[in-house]
This record gives sequence, C-alpha cells and structure tokens, in this order.
Amino acid sequence: MTKISIAKARRLRTTPYTSRIEKQGLSAYSVYNHMLLPAGFDVSLEDSYHHLKEHVQVWDVAGERQVEISGPDSAKLVQLMTCRDLSNAKEGRCYYCPIIDDNAGLINDPVVLKINDNKWWLSIADSDVILFAKGLAIGKKFDVSIVEPNVDILAVQGPKSYPLMEKIFGKEITDLKFFGFDYFDFRGVKHLIARSGWSKQGGYEIYVENTKSGLELYDHLFDIGKEFNVEPGCPNLIERIESALLSYGNDIDNNDNPLECGFDKYVNLDSDVIFLGKEKLKQIKSEGINKKLMGVMINLDKINMSQSIELIDNKNNIIGDMRSAVFSPTFKKVIGIAMFKKPFWDVGLEFNLNIEGISTNGTICNIPFV
Amino acid sequence: MTKISIAKARRLRTTPYTSRIEKQGLSAYSVYNHMLLPAGFDVSLEDSYHHLKEHVQVWDVAGERQVEISGPDSAKLVQLMTCRDLSNAKEGRCYYCPIIDDNAGLINDPVVLKINDNKWWLSIADSDVILFAKGLAIGKKFDVSIVEPNVDILAVQGPKSYPLMEKIFGKEITDLKFFGFDYFDFRGVKHLIARSGWSKQGGYEIYVENTKSGLELYDHLFDIGKEFNVEPGCPNLIERIESALLSYGNDIDNNDNPLECGFDKYVNLDSDVIFLGKEKLKQIKSEGINKKLMGVMINLDKINMSQSIELIDNKNNIIGDMRSAVFSPTFKKVIGIAMFKKPFWDVGLEFNLNIEGISTNGTICNIPFV
Repeated sequence: MTKISIAKARRLRTTPYTSRIEKQGLSAYSVYNHMLLPAGFDVSLEDSYHHLKEHVQVWDVAGERQVEISGPDSAKLVQLMTCRDLSNAKEGRCYYCPIIDDNAGLINDPVVLKINDNKWWLSIADSDVILFAKGLAIGKKFDVSIVEPNVDILAVQGPKSYPLMEKIFGKEITDLKFFGFDYFDFRGVKHLIARSGWSKQGGYEIYVENTKSGLELYDHLFDIGKEFNVEPGCPNLIERIESALLSYGNDIDNNDNPLECGFDKYVNLDSDVIFLGKEKLKQIKSEGINKKLMGVMINLDKINMSQSIELIDNKNNIIGDMRSAVFSPTFKKVIGIAMFKKPFWDVGLEFNLNIEGISTNGTICNIPFV
Repeated sequence: MTKISIAKARRLRTTPYTSRIEKQGLSAYSVYNHMLLPAGFDVSLEDSYHHLKEHVQVWDVAGERQVEISGPDSAKLVQLMTCRDLSNAKEGRCYYCPIIDDNAGLINDPVVLKINDNKWWLSIADSDVILFAKGLAIGKKFDVSIVEPNVDILAVQGPKSYPLMEKIFGKEITDLKFFGFDYFDFRGVKHLIARSGWSKQGGYEIYVENTKSGLELYDHLFDIGKEFNVEPGCPNLIERIESALLSYGNDIDNNDNPLECGFDKYVNLDSDVIFLGKEKLKQIKSEGINKKLMGVMINLDKINMSQSIELIDNKNNIIGDMRSAVFSPTFKKVIGIAMFKKPFWDVGLEFNLNIEGISTNGTICNIPFV
C-alpha cells in the first residue's frame, strides 16, 4: 500500500504528548475522537509487538476521550445507555459497557468509571457519545451535566509496567486489581490510575487531568524506564487481534447488536434496570441472531486491510465479511475478525476470499484464538 | 513539518472513489466523519488553488455524510436542532444551519436539504450529528426514522464546472439557482444535484446514492472534462480561507456559540419556532458576546498550523487564538481566522505571536477578507 500522509489541522486535535512522541520515531497516525492517535513507529509492527510482550511501552492514547456525566440523574442516564446492569457498580471500579441505541445497535463500547454515585466517566471508543448523552438528557429533562473533561490518558503497557509503575508510585499501585482505579501521587499531584489498557500484556492507564504534571510524568516514565527497556508504543494490531480485543468501527459498528458480537455477558435482560433497546434485545434473544462475530485463520503470510473483505463459499455466495486481520507470529498465519451470516458460522467451516487479485482460503475459529 | 503517514483501517472508511483518487496523485488524507477525506495531491496547494479558480475540479467529499431524518415529526426534530427558522423552508432548497445544544454551543454546521415535508438530509461537518438526533428523538419520543443513507458526494467545483456539467446533464442544470437542488439523469439513473460546494468558485455537489452509476459518472467527468482541463482536487485551504468558509472543528467548535461566530443571520430569535438554546441565545444577545471570530493578517510568507496559536498584546496577555491560517497569494501575507476575547476585536488592532520560535505580528481584519 502506498504511504499517504496525514494532513494536520486544528480539527484533528493534537495531544499534550504529540510534540514529544513525534521526536520519538512516530511514523503513522490514526484519528480517534477527532484527535491524533499514534499508530506506528520507525520499528516494524512485529518488532513492537515482541517488545510489548516482553518489556514495557508508554502510549499516548489521549484520543480515548472521557464523557463526564455528573449530577443527580447521572446514574440513571449512564444506565439508560448501556445494556449492562450497573445497579451494583462500585466506586473505584471500571466496567466495560456496550452502549446501544433503541434499536440495540452499538454506538460505542466504553470503559465506564464510577467516580462516585453522582459522577461517571465514559472512556470512549471512536464516536461522539457526548452528543448521544446530551440528546438523551435534553429529551428526558435529566438533571445532569455532560462535558468532555481535560483528560489525556497515558497507557503504560507490558509485563514490565508493574516494576516501572511501582518505582514511581510505590508498592500500593501493585495492589490495584484488574479494572480497579485509585488516585496516586506524583510529585504532589494526584492522578487517577486504572489497572487497564488496550492490550492483554498487563499495565495501567493514567487519566492525566493536570497536563503539566502529566508531561513531567511522561518524561519521568522514559527516564526511570530505561532499566526496563521502555519504548514509546501504541495499540498494536497484532497483539490486539491475537488477544481478541474488539475495536469499535473496525470489528463492530452501529449495524451490529451486542448479541451478534459475543457480548452476552454484558447484556443483562433479567434485571429490572431501564435501558434503551432492552425490548429489542429480548426479541433478538428469543428469535436468535442473524449474524455472528467469529475468528478466522487464513492461509496467507501477510495482509493489509483498509476495508471489509468479502468471504465467500464454494458457490460464490457471500457468507461473511472480514473486518480486521493481521499476520500473527504466534499462529504463523493471518488471523482476523469477521461477521458471518446465519447459518455460516460453524467453527472449522472453510471459505474463500480474494485479496488484491489473489484467491486464497481460510477457516472459521473461535475468538479468543487458541 | 515532518510527513507522517495515515494508518488505514476499516474504521477510517474508504469511499467508492478511494481507489480511483489514489491513482490520480493523492498525497494526503484527512479524516472526516470517520471517513477518508482527500486533503492533498502531488501538485502544490498553491497550484491546485490557481487551477480551482480557473478551471474545474472533481472532489471526493463522501466524508460529508448525510443524516436522514424522516417521518411525521421530522420537521419538528430538525427545527429543534437549529437556531435558523426553517418554518418556511422549501422543497428543493439547501439551508446552511448552525446546530446547537441547549447551552447554545455549536455541534455542527450542516447544509440542510428539504427533500419533502417528511424527509430531510443534513449534510454534515465533522461530528456525529446522528447520535445527537437519535438521543433527542428517543428522549422526546418523536415519531421519526434517523439513518445515515448510502450517499457519497462528488463535488464539481470551479468556473468551468458549469460547461462541464451542462455537457453531461443538459442545459437545465444551468438553471439551478445557488443552494437549489433537483434530480438529473445520467444514463438512466437519477442523481440529486445541488448548486453548492465548499468553495466560492461555483459548482455542484452530486449526492450519489447509486454507487455504480456514481463511479461511471466519476470516470465520465474526467473523460468529458479534458477539454475543460479537469483535475482531481479537494477543499483547498487557501481558497476556503480567502473565501472565509468556516470549518467546524477548525475555526469553530462546541465551546463557541453562533453569535460569536458571526452567524447572526442564521439566528432567528424573534419567530415562535422552538429550538434548543433559544433562551440562552436571547440572554447572550442581550448581554453581548464575550468573544468574536475575526480575520487576521500576519506578516509571514508561510505557515503550517496543527493547533491553535495564541495571539498576545504588548503586555504579553493572551487576547485571542488563531485557529486556521495559510499564505494567501492574493494578499501576499498569511491570512487566518481567530477568536478574540472581548474587547480586543477591533479591526486594525495589532497583536504579536510566536510560531516555531519566531516572533512576528499581525492585525485584525474583517471576514470576509477584502
């Protein structure tokens, strides 16, 4: 694929870390929530993948914006937007929550942080959830305040994130459980830090509100991190597909519902909480889904995807579309995530596809990949 | 500025024209409504600017997505979202409409097409207006259907767009008045075509619903267009700033209200139509605005902007922020669009600024530039 550059402008917002990361070998950007998201460096994707699995990386994921919903009706509004029952949500915990519309179509899949009973942060994927929340709140006359706070997340990911973060924030940060968050001090400034992140290699996300302190922390992470072989990084396509971390807009979108995407455990239809699309989801559940997200393995040693690729059966019928794929060093094949039509989603089913004029084939598998 | 490439993925949607335009010398992309927007070619910005002003260009502006609102309550919902009085809107006409929230903050500035009494298209700038509309409709229990239809706009811009389009669609297309639209036939397929576009050089926007016909039309435009010196193009930074065409996300955003942005003629506070933010706008109007969008001229012969630049007075106080700027071949200076704090917006007022370590100065002027 030809390299095409990104045209910068204020509309594609820079982050506080942009000038630093561009001096650290950044080679590619994506755009996420109207903000620049680092997407590649002067090292290969595969080298960065191995580094992430062995060492520690600092990621500028400020594009993962927060929607802050506060006020007396905040819990009611947050619950209205997600099919996950949040009635027992605890302060200091993160919750992965599909956000759906009244037709059960996915609008986003944020991690929801319960700051307290009257304040929630939705750490969002790439869509303007704030506009959905505002529209609902205005229409329902909810007593809430909805803003995008000044929060720019730094992710520290990889197995050596634990000793690195311990060295900066002390032993207590290692007590944080997965998807827990708390406040930790850096040179007199408190930072909200969660044990979370968009890799399965372990790590933390630092929700930086104090930009000046965040920049000092950024530099300190690279300084202190030398002994742990720290490098700048970004969400890694190989690692995230191998780990089956779904990407809104890539693998799933508003034309899909949570039951088609395997989010059954985040769909709580039996409790009495009120959320959009609940009746629709009950109907879908009783009638059965019409398409299903599955893993695929393809007999190729490389792939570049910029749009869906049709998957076809022996009679040339389209049975599914592949939405993300990458060559996996672990499986020594291309692995991908694809949506299959009913009833063509059996594990082991073979399909054909054409990529850049080349015909090849693959088989359906479960996600996570094993 | 270093050239950094764009990382492609399904989430940054391709358009039907992507594969064609990439073979025509495309060198840079922006992202607009989660879609690739061509932003530069293998000719210089200035050469493309001169070409646009003299000849004709075909632009892939599919990123200008449509939000289709239809059904019995569609007119009520569209009106609720904009401070422009649409009660006398006519079928077959386009209306530039600031969309605002209940706090009068701008959410988008689409061109609204009244297809008929029960069907409207909002041809949007870069934010997910569909989510705002859905939230409002759900909250208000409006009887509407809200979808993003399969529409990928081709813009034909420049003075020679008239003879080119006449050659394809016949004499009647030249009867179309500015911001009027109608349906025109191309090889048996009807296309909605408006006399509009994001330049002041004249031209049309073809709202392609039939992709196959649109691709034939794309090729035909370049084929037939040879005698008019047709070239591929894209919204041109020089032309659009010289023409004072504002860009949502660049020049204006949710922190600004329409009165601060000079949209007074699209703010109808005296009629009895119901829209969000009306009381807030009345209050702002009676109290006066606290900041104002103005033009600036700066003593530089080039500039590259990727974020706001602070404008300061002689005492080093920040009096405004410049949001877009470019070297203008017409004015032989850098011209830009900036938001100034009260009371620092007088035409002729001088200010200082620092760009990449260089100190310089400029003066405030009206927009449009003269």
